Amino acid sequence: MNLKEYLSEKRKLLEPFILDYLKSKRGSNSNLAYLDDAIEKLEKFVTQGKMLRGILVLASCEMFGREISNQELQIAAALELTHSALLIHDDIMDNDLKRRGNPTIFAQYISQATQVSDPKTYGISQGINVGDISLFYAYDLLSNSTNDVKLNRKLVKFFTEELVKVGAAQMQDVAFGYSSENPNTEDILSVYKYKSGRYTVSLPLVMGAILTNQDNDTIKKLDKFGEKLGIIFQIKDDELGLFGNEAEIGKPVGSDIRENKKTIFRSLLFQKADSKQMNFLNTVFGNGQLTQEEIVRVKKLLSELNVVDEVNQTVQELLLDVRSILSNLDISKSSKNLLEEFIEYNLNRKV
Amino acid sequence: MNLKEYLSEKRKLLEPFILDYLKSKRGSNSNLAYLDDAIEKLEKFVTQGKMLRGILVLASCEMFGREISNQELQIAAALELTHSALLIHDDIMDNDLKRRGNPTIFAQYISQATQVSDPKTYGISQGINVGDISLFYAYDLLSNSTNDVKLNRKLVKFFTEELVKVGAAQMQDVAFGYSSENPNTEDILSVYKYKSGRYTVSLPLVMGAILTNQDNDTIKKLDKFGEKLGIIFQIKDDELGLFGNEAEIGKPVGSDIRENKKTIFRSLLFQKADSKQMNFLNTVFGNGQLTQEEIVRVKKLLSELNVVDEVNQTVQELLLDVRSILSNLDISKSSKNLLEEFIEYNLNRKV
Repeated sequence: MNLKEYLSEKRKLLEPFILDYLKSKRGSNSNLAYLDDAIEKLEKFVTQGKMLRGILVLASCEMFGREISNQELQIAAALELTHSALLIHDDIMDNDLKRRGNPTIFAQYISQATQVSDPKTYGISQGINVGDISLFYAYDLLSNSTNDVKLNRKLVKFFTEELVKVGAAQMQDVAFGYSSENPNTEDILSVYKYKSGRYTVSLPLVMGAILTNQDNDTIKKLDKFGEKLGIIFQIKDDELGLFGNEAEIGKPVGSDIRENKKTIFRSLLFQKADSKQMNFLNTVFGNGQLTQEEIVRVKKLLSELNVVDEVNQTVQELLLDVRSILSNLDISKSSKNLLEEFIEYNLNRKV
Repeated sequence: MNLKEYLSEKRKLLEPFILDYLKSKRGSNSNLAYLDDAIEKLEKFVTQGKMLRGILVLASCEMFGREISNQELQIAAALELTHSALLIHDDIMDNDLKRRGNPTIFAQYISQATQVSDPKTYGISQGINVGDISLFYAYDLLSNSTNDVKLNRKLVKFFTEELVKVGAAQMQDVAFGYSSENPNTEDILSVYKYKSGRYTVSLPLVMGAILTNQDNDTIKKLDKFGEKLGIIFQIKDDELGLFGNEAEIGKPVGSDIRENKKTIFRSLLFQKADSKQMNFLNTVFGNGQLTQEEIVRVKKLLSELNVVDEVNQTVQELLLDVRSILSNLDISKSSKNLLEEFIEYNLNRKV
């Protein structure tokens, strides 16, 4: 089975599992009118994405010979609901009104608030609440996934440690967003590591490895594999935000420039630009009224100043490490093939 | 031992337990510079309050003959860290810059953001993150509190259900805040029930009862006892916000009027006021520039229109139920005395 088939097959298991769980929480209390509406919004939101993290939990379990049953799905669902919670809160922080082509959760509440004096603050408040509720559900699923107390403890401990790192890296990222200084590449890659890398790939793979009782050496290797591949994943996200296709990525190209996001592309570009180029860059980064021509000019500079090449160089170095760890992993040939396909998918994805 | 001594004795157990837990999370990663600062802020915040919910967990355990050990403290600490998380997020929603006389978490980040163009949004973002991190820690503590899988499952399930209700009631409360309509007393009491009543008293008492394996009948009685006493607790909070002493309650008297909070006092006042009085009320409720004279006039109206009496009547009715449930609870005489003292404390507290 190739990766595309694999993703689609596992999604067919995971999506209904999450939706059934959420549906079972609806209609429980007529006095809590806002809850059903919040859950309905959450159902749409959680199934909009690629469900990569949840599916990676399942892939990790299968790699280690475990058949997918309820407990594996519970952990996968917990990761997806956590991811939704974090995205809902992130969208507030980044003031992102669209995600995957649809209005974000807080934007939906802003639209509903036609009668109030301050729709934005109303939307922010309700978005915070829906994110919190999604987190409660996530931990509920996770905390009750196995009958083995020690295993449960290990799962929750690792999960919490990683989420705290995501939160701390997000704080750093928020600070970057408000800073006029150009953070260096190292600091940006550190945020990528904790906010995206470990969280997107290490976390799900290691959760599967813990659940199937793998030894520490295997867990460590998977952890490193995921961390480095996850950083590539984030860099590719940045790249798509600049060079991707608007219809495919579901958000306007150039929005990272508009929002002045401190990406690795921006960091290198600002390091390499001369004073004249800097004058131009300072007028476009963080400019909400960015034009198509300006985006094209930024892209051209990224090529001319070898930023694209240098980022690609970083990706290639990470890739070498990723493949070297993979070759040393004690898993079946078919599992290695699937992970190799996942690496390729990451390098070539358009969305 | 009287209640005051009891609260102070248990606090001496719980506070260092929480602080030790949080301190153990500091300094773990030099790349996550924001985490230590966030934890430091959290340490101060979590110990600023009365720690009522955590101490009620311990009281419930002791009522059922359980000695306090690590697992009881873990659950109590989980409730306190959850409470901090919810307060941190609530303060953002209510735009409250002070709590218990100190700057709220998001206000602390606003103050730090001297160099940024939009300190408020910066503060909101970092406040959301610190609240999330506090929630991660809370569930970490809770999920690992016992070695009995079934018990763990029951604890996490009940805890999550109650927190979801708090979240949904908070959504309703946010909507009240933005509505120009006067919600009726019933709807307000429903929010009080889920946002404060069950959460402040039922949740901790029932967690103790679950942990000590009490039967369903006892759990149900405690649940109802807590719910009704908790509603009284919230009404008393409203009353203190209007008639309390500023230095004692740690926030300006009248801030509920200034913020146009939909309290039971406001609801009844708006129902009873004639059109001339309504003209006055409409100029003061939600008015950030409220004067001391206006507050005095509102208080006078609350008395003259018998709002204070009617609220007191509601409290008395709840009190009858609370005491009748208490008398039917199968617990020791000394435990009943402690709960009776807790009722009295609630009725007479100044802070």
